[in-house]
Amino acid sequence: MTPVQLDVQAQESPQNPCLVVTPTHKIFSATAPIASCQPHEVKIHIKSTGICGTDIHYWKHGRVGDLALEKNLILGHETAGQIVQVGSAVRKSLKVGDRVAIEPQVPCGECYLCMDGHYNLCQSVSFLGVPPTNGSMQRYLCTDARFVHIIPDNMSYEEGALVEVFSVAWHGIRKAGGITPGKPCMVAGCGPIGLATLMIADVAGAYPIVATDISEERLGFAKTLVPSLRTYCSDTSLSIHENAMKIRSLFGNSEYVMPPVVLECTGVASSINTSCYVVRRNGIVTILGVSCKNELDGFPFMPLSFGEVDIRFINRYADSWPAVINLISSGKLDASKLVSHRFSLEEATKAFECVVDPTRPSIKVMIVDN
Amino acid sequence: MTPVQLDVQAQESPQNPCLVVTPTHKIFSATAPIASCQPHEVKIHIKSTGICGTDIHYWKHGRVGDLALEKNLILGHETAGQIVQVGSAVRKSLKVGDRVAIEPQVPCGECYLCMDGHYNLCQSVSFLGVPPTNGSMQRYLCTDARFVHIIPDNMSYEEGALVEVFSVAWHGIRKAGGITPGKPCMVAGCGPIGLATLMIADVAGAYPIVATDISEERLGFAKTLVPSLRTYCSDTSLSIHENAMKIRSLFGNSEYVMPPVVLECTGVASSINTSCYVVRRNGIVTILGVSCKNELDGFPFMPLSFGEVDIRFINRYADSWPAVINLISSGKLDASKLVSHRFSLEEATKAFECVVDPTRPSIKVMIVDN
Amino acid sequence: MTPVQLDVQAQESPQNPCLVVTPTHKIFSATAPIASCQPHEVKIHIKSTGICGTDIHYWKHGRVGDLALEKNLILGHETAGQIVQVGSAVRKSLKVGDRVAIEPQVPCGECYLCMDGHYNLCQSVSFLGVPPTNGSMQRYLCTDARFVHIIPDNMSYEEGALVEVFSVAWHGIRKAGGITPGKPCMVAGCGPIGLATLMIADVAGAYPIVATDISEERLGFAKTLVPSLRTYCSDTSLSIHENAMKIRSLFGNSEYVMPPVVLECTGVASSINTSCYVVRRNGIVTILGVSCKNELDGFPFMPLSFGEVDIRFINRYADSWPAVINLISSGKLDASKLVSHRFSLEEATKAFECVVDPTRPSIKVMIVDN
Amino acid sequence: MTPVQLDVQAQESPQNPCLVVTPTHKIFSATAPIASCQPHEVKIHIKSTGICGTDIHYWKHGRVGDLALEKNLILGHETAGQIVQVGSAVRKSLKVGDRVAIEPQVPCGECYLCMDGHYNLCQSVSFLGVPPTNGSMQRYLCTDARFVHIIPDNMSYEEGALVEVFSVAWHGIRKAGGITPGKPCMVAGCGPIGLATLMIADVAGAYPIVATDISEERLGFAKTLVPSLRTYCSDTSLSIHENAMKIRSLFGNSEYVMPPVVLECTGVASSINTSCYVVRRNGIVTILGVSCKNELDGFPFMPLSFGEVDIRFINRYADSWPAVINLISSGKLDASKLVSHRFSLEEATKAFECVVDPTRPSIKVMIVDN
Repeated sequence: MTPVQLDVQAQESPQNPCLVVTPTHKIFSATAPIASCQPHEVKIHIKSTGICGTDIHYWKHGRVGDLALEKNLILGHETAGQIVQVGSAVRKSLKVGDRVAIEPQVPCGECYLCMDGHYNLCQSVSFLGVPPTNGSMQRYLCTDARFVHIIPDNMSYEEGALVEVFSVAWHGIRKAGGITPGKPCMVAGCGPIGLATLMIADVAGAYPIVATDISEERLGFAKTLVPSLRTYCSDTSLSIHENAMKIRSLFGNSEYVMPPVVLECTGVASSINTSCYVVRRNGIVTILGVSCKNELDGFPFMPLSFGEVDIRFINRYADSWPAVINLISSGKLDASKLVSHRFSLEEATKAFECVVDPTRPSIKVMIVDN
Repeated sequence: MTPVQLDVQAQESPQNPCLVVTPTHKIFSATAPIASCQPHEVKIHIKSTGICGTDIHYWKHGRVGDLALEKNLILGHETAGQIVQVGSAVRKSLKVGDRVAIEPQVPCGECYLCMDGHYNLCQSVSFLGVPPTNGSMQRYLCTDARFVHIIPDNMSYEEGALVEVFSVAWHGIRKAGGITPGKPCMVAGCGPIGLATLMIADVAGAYPIVATDISEERLGFAKTLVPSLRTYCSDTSLSIHENAMKIRSLFGNSEYVMPPVVLECTGVASSINTSCYVVRRNGIVTILGVSCKNELDGFPFMPLSFGEVDIRFINRYADSWPAVINLISSGKLDASKLVSHRFSLEEATKAFECVVDPTRPSIKVMIVDN
Repeated sequence: MTPVQLDVQAQESPQNPCLVVTPTHKIFSATAPIASCQPHEVKIHIKSTGICGTDIHYWKHGRVGDLALEKNLILGHETAGQIVQVGSAVRKSLKVGDRVAIEPQVPCGECYLCMDGHYNLCQSVSFLGVPPTNGSMQRYLCTDARFVHIIPDNMSYEEGALVEVFSVAWHGIRKAGGITPGKPCMVAGCGPIGLATLMIADVAGAYPIVATDISEERLGFAKTLVPSLRTYCSDTSLSIHENAMKIRSLFGNSEYVMPPVVLECTGVASSINTSCYVVRRNGIVTILGVSCKNELDGFPFMPLSFGEVDIRFINRYADSWPAVINLISSGKLDASKLVSHRFSLEEATKAFECVVDPTRPSIKVMIVDN
Repeated sequence: MTPVQLDVQAQESPQNPCLVVTPTHKIFSATAPIASCQPHEVKIHIKSTGICGTDIHYWKHGRVGDLALEKNLILGHETAGQIVQVGSAVRKSLKVGDRVAIEPQVPCGECYLCMDGHYNLCQSVSFLGVPPTNGSMQRYLCTDARFVHIIPDNMSYEEGALVEVFSVAWHGIRKAGGITPGKPCMVAGCGPIGLATLMIADVAGAYPIVATDISEERLGFAKTLVPSLRTYCSDTSLSIHENAMKIRSLFGNSEYVMPPVVLECTGVASSINTSCYVVRRNGIVTILGVSCKNELDGFPFMPLSFGEVDIRFINRYADSWPAVINLISSGKLDASKLVSHRFSLEEATKAFECVVDPTRPSIKVMIVDN
C-alpha cells in the first residue's frame, strides 16, 4: 500500500501554526516544525481544542504540582481532528481521512497499573500539553494510535474535543460505583467538570440531582442543561454543617432519600467537607476536583466513620472514549451546550484572554481550525 | 389520635368485590370478607392491579413450581391504592389517604438473607396472590406497612401498580452490575418484563440497545418505546450460534463493541444459549426470565469459560420501589406505555380472558377500581 | 414445653453482682435487679467480658461522642455466657444451656439500612453498655435472641467474648475488599484492634504484613502473634512523609509491592496521614480506628487523588459472629493470646484499674464469672 | 554493559535437549536449535517443568478445542529456570543469573481486554507449549520478559514451576470474589487444580472446607494437605440432587452454613450440576475446570434463579505470579506436596508414560534439568 498523506501533502510546505506558553508566563502564536510520525503513531490535523483550567494554570503559574514548564511548550489536550498519516506499525484499524477524538494520555503499557486496567495511574505516562510533551494547540499533532478513537459522522470535531471533559465526569461516576437509576445524586460545583458530571448523572438516570456552587449564574446555567435540577448556592456566612443541612433539605426529610453518591467537582476543602455531611450512610463521595493545596483540613472523620462512607478519588480517566462517543452520537448527551466561545487557531491568544476575563463569563472556550 | 377509616367507613357496609381462581382452573367474580388490619399492617383500597403471566399460570395450571393452589385464591400482586386504615404498631410514616404502591413480598426479617440485604431470597417469605396468601384483585387489602411505598401526586395508581413490573427490570439491571452509560446492551425478549427492561436500560444510558424476540410485532412495539432500538427477530431455521452471529453484527464488527451486559428476559433455553454467544468477553448475562423447565440443556459452557462470562439470576427484587417511583415521577420513564387494556374490578374475568385471547394482542392488562 | 430456667432458678434468690459506672467518673461493684426476659429475648449467665477502650472512656470522660452518661450504667459489650432462659417468641434455634457469644448491637430491623444489609449503621440501634442500655458486666443479662450466637464446645467463654474484638478486625478487612492471599498488607497500630486485625490478615493469607506503632513493646508482642511480621516504630522526629518512606522500604522497592490494603487501627491523624502515603496506587485505606477528634487535618488529598486511593471507614461490624466463631473453633485463630489479665466479676473494679495502670502494661483484660 | 551469556556460553556448543510431540500422537526426545533471544525477551535455562493434563491431551488427541497440532511441537508451560541472557530492549529489572518462574501467556498488550486488566482473555495471545508456540520441555527457552517473575532464594525451581498450577487456583478464588475468612467453602474435584484450590482456600481462611471427588484415594491424599478437610466421595448410584444433599449435610443443617463459594475444579456436568444444588442462596459457583464437551446439559436453572446464584468461569489467570510466589516463599503454602514423581529432561518420555500409567497413581509429575 502506498502511504497516503492527505492535506499535509496537498500544499507545497504545510504550515503548522501553534500557541506557545513560556516559563515566564507569556503566551504567543508561532509556527512550529511538524513532528515526524513514528511507526506506532498517527499524524492528525487538529480541528478543535478546548481550553482547560490546567492550561490556564500552566500559563499563569508555570507549573501544576511537580510538573514545571522548563522551556516553551505547546498546550492543549481536549482535542479532535482528522488523520492525515498512519504510521507503519499501527495495528489498530485507522486510516487517512478518519475523523478522530484523541485520548491525550500515553501510558507505558508494561507496569502493573497498565496491566491491571488502571493505565491512567501509570507512573511513566506522557500527556499531551503537559511538560515535556507538546499538546494539540497546533495544526498537526502526532500521537500513539492506540489512544485515537474514531468518531461517527454525526459528531462534530468540537464534540470530539469535548469527549475529554465528559470522560472525567464519566470516569468519576464509574469510580463512584455508577449511578443507580432513580437514586438521588449530588454534584458539588458547576464549572465545566461539574456541568459535564451532572449531565452524565442525568443521562444515567439519577433523580433527583442537587447541584451546588457559589455562583447563582452558574447554577442558573446548570438548570438549562438539566431542567429538573435542584440547586443550592452555598452561603459562606454559614458553617459547613449548616450548609450541608440546607442541601439535605432539598433531597427530603429522611436519611433514606439522601444521596448515596456525591460527585465533588471543586477540590475545595469547604465543598468536600460539606459533601461529607450530605451523603447518606453507606454512601460514596467521589472527588473529581483537584486542588492547589496538597492537604485538606477539617475533614469530618467521625461522621464518615459512623456512616461507613467511602471517599474515592479519580485521576483522569480510562476506557472512556468509546462510551462517551456513543453517548454523544446517540443524541442522549448534547455536549456542545458547554461551549460558550470559539476562536480560530490563529487567534488562540484571544481565546486564553477570554477565559480569564471576568467581564466575559465563559464555560468552555474552543480553538478551531478548518 | 382517633383512628381514621376513610372510605371503608363512609358507607354502611363496604363491599369487597374480588376475582377468585380455583384449583380446578376456573375464575369468577365474588364478594370476599374484608380482612382485619393487623397492628403492623395498613388497609388499602386497591385502585389498580396488573395481570402477570404468573396469574395466568395459576389459572391455567393451578401451580407455579412447588406452589400449588389447594383452595380458592384471590390473585394479584402488581398493585397500588389508597390507605384507608393504619395499624396501631406501624412505625413507618404512613397515614390514611396516602396514595401507595405495594411491594408484594413480606419476608421474615430475621434470617441471614433478610439481615444481609437479600430479603427477596428469604425462604419464609409470603407473597400477595401466591398460595396461601390472597392478593390484590379485591377492593380492600391489608398488608405489612414496611412494604408500602408512598407515590407522589404526579403519579397515577396505574403507574403505581406498574412499579412492580419495572422493579423486576430495575433489579435485573442492578444485579448485572448496572448499566455503564454509553456501553452497548442486549435485551432478549420483548414481553412485559423485556419491554420494561429495555426502557430502564435506555433511561440508564445504555447505547446501542439490541432487542430480540420471535415476534416482529412485539419488536415493532418495542421500537415505539425506544426509537433508537435495534431489533432482531430470531430465525428458528438457524442454529443458536448463527442467530448469535446475526445479533452480533447489529452491534458492530469487533469484540469490543459487543454488549458487556445481556439481560435475558425469556427464560427459554434457545434464547439463553444464544445470549451466551453474543455477550462480550468478561461480560455478564443476567437471566430475568423464568422457565417452566427446571433444567437447561445445551448451555454453552466452554465459550463462557474462554470468555470468563458471568451468568447471574434474579428472584424478584429488593429495595426497588423508591427508585422506580422516582424514575416514573421524574418523567424519565413513561411506564403507562405498557398498558394495552383496562377493565373494571367487576369485569376482572374479562381482563383475564383478554390476556389469553390470541386475536387481541395485549401487553399489560390492568384491573381498575375507583 | 415447660419453660426451663437453668441456674437462676437453682438457687433461692439468685444474685446479680455487677459493675456500675457513674456520670461523676466513679466505678463500684453493686448488686442489680435481674431484668425480666422479654418474649424475643434470651437471659444469659454472663461468663466472660472483656474491657474495651470505650468502657474506659465512659468511666473517665462520661461520654463518647454524643452519647453521655446521664445516670449510673452497667458497662460491658465484649461478652459470652450460657443461656438460662428463652423468651416465648424466640424463633431462632436456641435452648437453655447453650453456650453463646453475644453480638451487642440490636438494630431496629425496619429502616433501609437494616433492610439493605447494613444493620450496623441503623440509626435506632441500642447497644449493650452504651447509654441508656445496661451491658454485660453483671451476672445475668437479657438480650435479643437474633444477636446471640452459639459457640461450639471447643471454644471457651473467654474466646466467645473475644469474638467482638475480632469482629471489628474481620469487618474492617471485609470492608477493605478482603485480603487477596499473597498480597502485602499494612496494619497501623498494635492496640487490641490492631493486633486482632493483623492476626486475621495473617489468617487470610496476607504477606508480607508490616505493622506500625509508637511502642517497641507492643510491636514486639505483635511479632509473637505473627512471627513473619515486619514492624516499624514510628519516629516522631520525622515528618509524616519520611515515616511513610521508611515503612515503604520494608515492603520493597517498587510501587507494585506496596500494600494494596492498609488497615488503620489508631484513628490518630498522624497515623492515618502516614498510611495514605504508604498505600499503593489504586489501593484502599480502611480506617478501623476511632478518634476523640471529630475532624482530621493534614489529610493528603492530592497524593490520594493521583493514586485513586479509596478511603473507607467502619462502624462496628455486621454478620461477623459466625465467621469469627468458625475461625477460632477451627484452630486457625488463637484469640486468647490477646488476654493479658483476668479478674473475677466481684473484683471488676480492679480490672478497670489494671487497664489504666501504666506500670502494668495490658493487652486485653477480662472479667470472668463461673 | 557487555552482554552476559551465562552457562550457554560456558560450553563450546550448548546442547538443547527437548521432548517433542507429533500430530500422529508420538512423543520422543530430540535436540532442538536454541532460539535466538529477541530484544524484548530473556533466554532461560529451564530447570523444572510440570506435566499438565493439557500436555497429555495434545499427545493423545492432537488438539485441544480449536487448537490442533499441525506439526511437531515442544510442550510445557508449568515452568521455572535461570536467566542466561537478557534482550536489549527489556525494561523490567531482570539480569543474568536471576532465578525465575515463567507466566506462559504472552498477550498482545493493545486490545481492550489487555488494557482493561483482563489480558488473560486476549484473543491474540500466544501460549508456551500450545500450537504454534514451543514450550518449556527443552533446556533453553526464550520468552517475553514482562511475563518472567523473579523467585526468592528460599524457593526451589520446582516450586517456581508449580506457581502456574496454583495460579489457576488463586485466580479462580479471586474470580469467586475471594474467600471471606471463617466462611465455608466447597471444592469439587481433587485433581491437581482441585488440590491447589483447596490449599489456597485453606490459606485464605475458609472453614470448613468440603472436598468432593469420585476417588477415595484422592480424597485421602487431599486430607493430608488440609487435615481439617471434610470429604465426600460422590456416589454414582445417587441422583445429582441426592449427592448434593449429602454434601450439604457435611456443612450443617441450615441454609446459612452452606458454602457461599463453590470452586468447581472438574468441568464435568454431574459435578457442576451438583455444585449448583449445594451453594447457598446468593452464593457463587466458580468453574475452574474445563471440559471436553462444549455444552452442558441438565444445568439446574430454576434453583439457581430462586437463589440468585452467580455462575462464574475462569480462563487461566492474570496478575497471579507475584502473589503465589509470596505465598510459597512465606511458608504458608507448601506447593511441593503436590509433586509425586520426578524425571530428568533426558527421560521426559518416561515422565509422560508415568502420568498415563494407571498402575502408578500420580499427582504432579515434574521434568527436571540441572
